[in-house]
Amino acid sequence: MSHYQVIGTRPIRHDGVDKVTGRALYGADFQTAGLLHGRILRSPHAHARIRRIDPSAALKIPGVIAVATAADFPDPGDRIANLGEGAIVLRHLSANCLARDKVLYHGHAVAAVAATNAHVAEEALAAIQVDYEPLPVVMDVLKAMQPDAPILHDDLTTESMAAPNGATKPTNIAKHLHYKLGDPERGFAAADVIIEREFRTATVHQGYIEPHNATALWNADGTLTIWCSTQGAFTVRAQVAELLQIPVSKIKVVPMEIGGGFGGKIRVYLEPVAAVLSKKAGRPVKVLMDRAAVLAATGPTPGSYIKVKVGADKSGRLTAAQAYLAYEAGAYPGSPIWAGCVCIFSCYDIPNLLIDGYDVCVNKPATSAYRAPGATNAAMAMETVVDEICERLGIDPLDFRIHNGAREGTRRADGLPFPKIGMIETCQAAKAHPHYSAPLAPGTNPAFPRGRGVAAGFWFNIGLKSTVAASVNSDGTVSLVEGSTDIGGTRTSVAMQLAEPLGLRAEDVRPNVVDTDAIGYTDVTGGSRVTYATGWAAYEAALDIQRQMCERVAALWKVAVDEVQYENGGVVAKSDPNKRMSFKEIAAEVQKHGGTIVGRASVDPPWPGGAYAVAIIDVEVDPETGKINILRCTVAQDCGRAIHPSYVEGQIQGGTVQGIGWGLNEEYVYDDQGHLLNASFLDYRMPTALDLPMIDTVIVEVPDPRHPFGVRGVGEVPIVPPPAAIANAVYRAVGVRMNVLPMSPGRVAKAILAKAGAAGKPAGATWG
Amino acid sequence: MSHYQVIGTRPIRHDGVDKVTGRALYGADFQTAGLLHGRILRSPHAHARIRRIDPSAALKIPGVIAVATAADFPDPGDRIANLGEGAIVLRHLSANCLARDKVLYHGHAVAAVAATNAHVAEEALAAIQVDYEPLPVVMDVLKAMQPDAPILHDDLTTESMAAPNGATKPTNIAKHLHYKLGDPERGFAAADVIIEREFRTATVHQGYIEPHNATALWNADGTLTIWCSTQGAFTVRAQVAELLQIPVSKIKVVPMEIGGGFGGKIRVYLEPVAAVLSKKAGRPVKVLMDRAAVLAATGPTPGSYIKVKVGADKSGRLTAAQAYLAYEAGAYPGSPIWAGCVCIFSCYDIPNLLIDGYDVCVNKPATSAYRAPGATNAAMAMETVVDEICERLGIDPLDFRIHNGAREGTRRADGLPFPKIGMIETCQAAKAHPHYSAPLAPGTNPAFPRGRGVAAGFWFNIGLKSTVAASVNSDGTVSLVEGSTDIGGTRTSVAMQLAEPLGLRAEDVRPNVVDTDAIGYTDVTGGSRVTYATGWAAYEAALDIQRQMCERVAALWKVAVDEVQYENGGVVAKSDPNKRMSFKEIAAEVQKHGGTIVGRASVDPPWPGGAYAVAIIDVEVDPETGKINILRCTVAQDCGRAIHPSYVEGQIQGGTVQGIGWGLNEEYVYDDQGHLLNASFLDYRMPTALDLPMIDTVIVEVPDPRHPFGVRGVGEVPIVPPPAAIANAVYRAVGVRMNVLPMSPGRVAKAILAKAGAAGKPAGATWG
Repeated sequence: MSHYQVIGTRPIRHDGVDKVTGRALYGADFQTAGLLHGRILRSPHAHARIRRIDPSAALKIPGVIAVATAADFPDPGDRIANLGEGAIVLRHLSANCLARDKVLYHGHAVAAVAATNAHVAEEALAAIQVDYEPLPVVMDVLKAMQPDAPILHDDLTTESMAAPNGATKPTNIAKHLHYKLGDPERGFAAADVIIEREFRTATVHQGYIEPHNATALWNADGTLTIWCSTQGAFTVRAQVAELLQIPVSKIKVVPMEIGGGFGGKIRVYLEPVAAVLSKKAGRPVKVLMDRAAVLAATGPTPGSYIKVKVGADKSGRLTAAQAYLAYEAGAYPGSPIWAGCVCIFSCYDIPNLLIDGYDVCVNKPATSAYRAPGATNAAMAMETVVDEICERLGIDPLDFRIHNGAREGTRRADGLPFPKIGMIETCQAAKAHPHYSAPLAPGTNPAFPRGRGVAAGFWFNIGLKSTVAASVNSDGTVSLVEGSTDIGGTRTSVAMQLAEPLGLRAEDVRPNVVDTDAIGYTDVTGGSRVTYATGWAAYEAALDIQRQMCERVAALWKVAVDEVQYENGGVVAKSDPNKRMSFKEIAAEVQKHGGTIVGRASVDPPWPGGAYAVAIIDVEVDPETGKINILRCTVAQDCGRAIHPSYVEGQIQGGTVQGIGWGLNEEYVYDDQGHLLNASFLDYRMPTALDLPMIDTVIVEVPDPRHPFGVRGVGEVPIVPPPAAIANAVYRAVGVRMNVLPMSPGRVAKAILAKAGAAGKPAGATWG
Repeated sequence: MSHYQVIGTRPIRHDGVDKVTGRALYGADFQTAGLLHGRILRSPHAHARIRRIDPSAALKIPGVIAVATAADFPDPGDRIANLGEGAIVLRHLSANCLARDKVLYHGHAVAAVAATNAHVAEEALAAIQVDYEPLPVVMDVLKAMQPDAPILHDDLTTESMAAPNGATKPTNIAKHLHYKLGDPERGFAAADVIIEREFRTATVHQGYIEPHNATALWNADGTLTIWCSTQGAFTVRAQVAELLQIPVSKIKVVPMEIGGGFGGKIRVYLEPVAAVLSKKAGRPVKVLMDRAAVLAATGPTPGSYIKVKVGADKSGRLTAAQAYLAYEAGAYPGSPIWAGCVCIFSCYDIPNLLIDGYDVCVNKPATSAYRAPGATNAAMAMETVVDEICERLGIDPLDFRIHNGAREGTRRADGLPFPKIGMIETCQAAKAHPHYSAPLAPGTNPAFPRGRGVAAGFWFNIGLKSTVAASVNSDGTVSLVEGSTDIGGTRTSVAMQLAEPLGLRAEDVRPNVVDTDAIGYTDVTGGSRVTYATGWAAYEAALDIQRQMCERVAALWKVAVDEVQYENGGVVAKSDPNKRMSFKEIAAEVQKHGGTIVGRASVDPPWPGGAYAVAIIDVEVDPETGKINILRCTVAQDCGRAIHPSYVEGQIQGGTVQGIGWGLNEEYVYDDQGHLLNASFLDYRMPTALDLPMIDTVIVEVPDPRHPFGVRGVGEVPIVPPPAAIANAVYRAVGVRMNVLPMSPGRVAKAILAKAGAAGKPAGATWG
């Protein structure tokens, strides 16, 4: 089918053996002479003013070398920086690393210690005296929007809120977005069925297996080296440069291997703290988080309140949709409310839209990106409402989605028309899959009701900057240098895009992820962009190598360069196809005279067309306990082009599992004083292999016509549909429409009881 | 004088603080988890057959993980590889790392152990049973050339020796070179004065402060990573690939900082041994040499026998010259005899030449490159003979050299004409220096005779391949990536050549020496080539950045690219010089949209024109002990263009000091069984600061017209003149012509006594 030799095959990943034999070096493995160990003191309060920090007792402990507080950071003033993850108010970023005047969540970093070993550092933390003035907390997004809510930031005012009297006053609402498309009022008037529902989703953590870590060495010449686990070494460099007010070129960030990130390892937490500790100590300082700190004090995805109203006519055509989304920013502004607003209806071609979105501060950790950030919350709402409409209209849910699916030219909520996209093809592939027409999968107990649900999801993958360099070795291989940290196998998916145009095997390319001094600027590994953008750069670098090989061979043959061309893995004479030199021959020949052939490219491509996924999920529900078991799960996804199908499948499976986690169990549990009660993997319940069936995947390929190989990006969208698909399956099984995430056993059991006990009331769960 | 802004200035070196604060990481600093410690068992015999190696007792010691012998290396067969230092017979290189059938010098590596710590490894060495059959030794180059000499290599035959009967038989003579130019017989017939003298020079070590080290990790996927101290990471990669018969792309060589090399850290010793130990152990293995091993078993420069005959006419014109050079190869063929032959007369324009050179194996360590290899031995001979001719003819020695100096078009011994060179300008600069016309410098004791000598030296610097990449940072700086290990400040001298064309400061460039996977092929740091060739690549990379900046600014201004140009640190509109964007502005602007700007270049330039140096040295001689004190020393050298004058001066001073060491004290002392008796820095006497005056330098700039900045290379030639200059000064002081190096007190005293006691005999020293 494919005319490619490498693209679409499944070579062994280049870093595979290193990873499975434990040789790969992660941040925690880093060692150097004279290393000090840093630890962070965290707030026991969810909201409090810091009256005073007194480190004097800690500094007296033998082995304690330095203590750092926010006073050691330069005053960030009102500066705003664009740091790859969007605009960041530096005051917030700085205070999130070390609280300046107030602590805003339980676990907020307050001070840091560097000591000769970790035990002394921990002892010292206990000796730091912090005088707190506790303040009332606000943990709920809707309560935080009330006029009388406790206020997190006195300097966050209603300037964008259009207060009735024109005055501004402190608020927790950091942003209000408003989108209108067409004439929503007329659209709803034309509807034969209108469904309006409210939803709540919980705060959820990415749950990457590797805790955050950072080692910093602030050298006597003012240069700073940082070894850390990050999705973007250049992003760390930029953030630290801004926070510490030193030029980026004074900082080298060495990305160690990364044990998962999912969006949560873009913002810095420890890096600037390790840096100031190192500056004060004059020695390298390594700071590690434990799991409790990761859960309590790094960026989860927002909990949210969403209200959706959707109308359709009898023909099954969507006529209008309206959404109100309130996302918890956590301690500092910055929830993915924009993405929530634009994604919520992006599976569909709906002529009339009205959307209001709110970014709201609460006393929880500052939220961060998490795989298709903001989209999963939104899909839970929209996709269950669509399911209800299909039920009312008696239309097959996939037929409905095929009928109403977004296509090229459909306008997004923000008015931009979609380029070529694969929503409809993905729904068709799901419908054609045997799962969809098969009887329900068998359950564990014949007495448990079973049901099947489907849901779709959209995510706009991103482009951004990538740089690669590729040096031809004398043995006919290529050393590839890239700035994209490899989380999901991108060393290989990028190498393959270099290999293909050169007629090499993937194994002939040796990919290397290097530090920020050793490659040109490259944006984060995130937004499903690496295989898309860094792969694109690799393709361009291959063409650059082709060009140079043509020049060198033409010189060797003493012909004009336009008399030769690169094809089938070598340079051939246009006039005589039998006159050729293979890549390997050229590589060996070049070694004898003349400079080395080095290909390079730096790209900033247009954003890809966006990705769609559809999940089909069979569940059974224990009617007594409310526990949901996933019996069968199939996910179809348009990846544009599957460079390495195994990793595409892995991304689909991994994203689906995380979506299932959102659906079933994952949530932050706080007491009424804002204390996080479940900051461990025992109490924060993620799916394990025992909770999951084999997840079937269907790779749909609707190539993005602008990308050299049609790549769209893969990593994020599969997390989006599962919660809604589970909710729809639960409805088929037990007749209750869940409108809260997670659908934990207690909530499901309560909903079943409520339905049974109060036939007159609408079935459904309530928050809490 | 100069129109340059950066070239010729003296910025602080980029790695300076790291070095002086002890932060720079050398190979011995390298640590990793699970590290094993390797040690090498060395031969107590200078020549012996290895009957059997029995490691069984060693392997029983707890903590001993692996033992390696030559049997662990693949059979190299008869392969010859060109590995950057010229052709190498792999059989020899392999057997030098671990002896295969015979040991050929005292200290020859025989076996290696990897153990959990160094103490256990050393204990295990003692437990390895080696059954030797001692063989007769030959330590002297002339004796080794005798037909009845003990033979080192049975497979080294007289094929190139033209045996009278056409038969071949084993020999120690590995190579015979023969050069003839013009008509030497007629040349000598035309001479009015002919001087013929014999010389001996000792085996001398580079004496770098950092011993050899290597850590290897042979991974389960067949990839091999090596951390080591080397002058050429790619050369290590190539050698290890050839020795272990694995592709170069399976090997990553990470060059750690290097504490001196001077030519002695090009050939591998420990790297392949560490690799096979790691392969057997399945863990990383670090192998370090101690000082005794460095002296006994790495490559010193050859001892030599040289006979020179030179004729000149009454006008002071050289008419003919003849030389016979026999250089000790040490255990394996490969002395720099070619360089000796071509350098010996290259200071002069002599119409008739006859040269025979011999590369001769003896039971000493295999010789290696050492700063202008082969030239210092030759200059000792020629420059003292020239001094004697000047004395006979009553001509000032510098006038004589100016009169007879080589110039553009002069043919070298091998027939190649010189391009533009600076021999005459350098002699003129020396003559113009106040030192040359000043009274003799005061000595330590008015009773000690004093004298002044001069000598010249030639060395052909090299070109070879270099690759650099240079990424523009958003803060208007450039990250420079290079493959040239930095021994003498080349991070800075290369960075300056990137900065100059871009209108940046040296500090705006951040140079990085990276591993073999992270940059294109780059040859060794040696042959005075890095500032020349890698600097050239940096210049080309700067032009590449200029081109891209012009394109980007033209696009921004919406004009054709040929309507703008790069000048004075920015892009300007040709039509309006006031319309401009500076480098920093462009760097910041580019960050906002479009790919990063990355310059790159890979060069393989022609060899530079060659370098000349002239030393003026005042000495005093203690007539009783024979000890020579250096009272004053001035060295003039043509460096083409001094990129960073401080480092040029440092190279001149450092080379001069090493030349003084050759002149005064340095030599290997063996007993008659070939045991090295002075393998420590206590007994191998190098000059210290107490032995030396401030060394004045005169930078002569005769730019090489082919290099963008006129660079010629600097590092090597200053070592060449000092021994002869000292000998000439000693003659002026005490009337004896020394013809042996080193001119240690005993030898000088003996020569003075011989002169006093036997007025009839020619003054001079004899060997031994």
